[in-house]
Amino acid sequence: MARVSQQHLDARRRQILDAAALCFARNGFHATSMQDVLKEADLSAGAVYRYFSGKDELIRAIVTEVLDEVRGAFEQAARLSPPPPPDELVGSVLGRALGARASLTCDGEPAFPRLVVQVWAETLRDKELAATMHEGYSRVHDGWMTLVRAYQDSGMMPADIPPEHVASTMIAAVQGFLVQQVLFGAAPVAVLQDGLRGLAGVRGPRSGT
Amino acid sequence: MARVSQQHLDARRRQILDAAALCFARNGFHATSMQDVLKEADLSAGAVYRYFSGKDELIRAIVTEVLDEVRGAFEQAARLSPPPPPDELVGSVLGRALGARASLTCDGEPAFPRLVVQVWAETLRDKELAATMHEGYSRVHDGWMTLVRAYQDSGMMPADIPPEHVASTMIAAVQGFLVQQVLFGAAPVAVLQDGLRGLAGVRGPRSGT
Repeated sequence: MARVSQQHLDARRRQILDAAALCFARNGFHATSMQDVLKEADLSAGAVYRYFSGKDELIRAIVTEVLDEVRGAFEQAARLSPPPPPDELVGSVLGRALGARASLTCDGEPAFPRLVVQVWAETLRDKELAATMHEGYSRVHDGWMTLVRAYQDSGMMPADIPPEHVASTMIAAVQGFLVQQVLFGAAPVAVLQDGLRGLAGVRGPRSGT
Repeated sequence: MARVSQQHLDARRRQILDAAALCFARNGFHATSMQDVLKEADLSAGAVYRYFSGKDELIRAIVTEVLDEVRGAFEQAARLSPPPPPDELVGSVLGRALGARASLTCDGEPAFPRLVVQVWAETLRDKELAATMHEGYSRVHDGWMTLVRAYQDSGMMPADIPPEHVASTMIAAVQGFLVQQVLFGAAPVAVLQDGLRGLAGVRGPRSGT
């Protein structure tokens, strides 16, 4: 058997994952067949099944890749002293995640936010997919919790607020931002950054008003 | 022809809208037929078509009802001086919107967040539905903009941040909160309120850290 370089294996794996992501973004997880993925990747069944046993493994690999990347970025940020404020951090992490996937498009729009919304809808009828999402989300949530505690330890956020609720809310803002890309077209990450800065600037009213 | 009271007409309309919302939440907009809605409402075709011409009109009525209610609440809040801070306002508006629909359930979980996620996914393949969503969203966005300007006018938020970006971000946080209900089960609105309070409390680090 011919020896194949690790670089070649990685490139092939990437090619398959990107093809699957495009198919899922276009038609959803349920309506996509492995045949569709082979066609999109322009590879034989043998070539694809060598890497992934089927759709479940593909979606798990896609979800895990994205969420591990995001969690890693948050944990890294939590080790900085002081940690970067939420608007900067969300801007850089989300900007990088979207930027790395910018070449994947669907009808001329970024495919990644569509993929995310399709996958959410499919968790309603697919318990395994729901479990995969839950697990991946828990890890991102843990990454955010670490960061929120770092904010609290360095006096950047009031210590009396449950870190898990801040983590959920930060993730919610990012999820909603992705939804809006799907519903109303691509928008720069700066929109979300400005919004978070605006929220961070909330004060009591001026006396006299 | 027998005269029918307005109260009766309203109750019948409510019954149909609730049945349609349940069907859409369960199976999505695309896979639901008018036959499914008739069956869920336990009404004849004649009784239903008297109110709604079909699925498009039903989903438009559902989306419009929810979004008008939300927009109205924000515009009303913007007229108060000073306006209630974001965490309080989101808590009361979202709590009311979810509470009013608490009796609609799907597999024992609130149907409303499921309905929302199903509808988002379907806008990917239904241009009319996308237009309905866009229009409804614009109105909620306008309501939030009015409110953000009121925050800025009363010194509660820095005036140099584009109000439309804060509006998008606040809506994103609510959208993401609904996504999380679907993915991970019902959570109290207090989670989002705490999170918004935490974000509003973000400060520069203590000197010396």
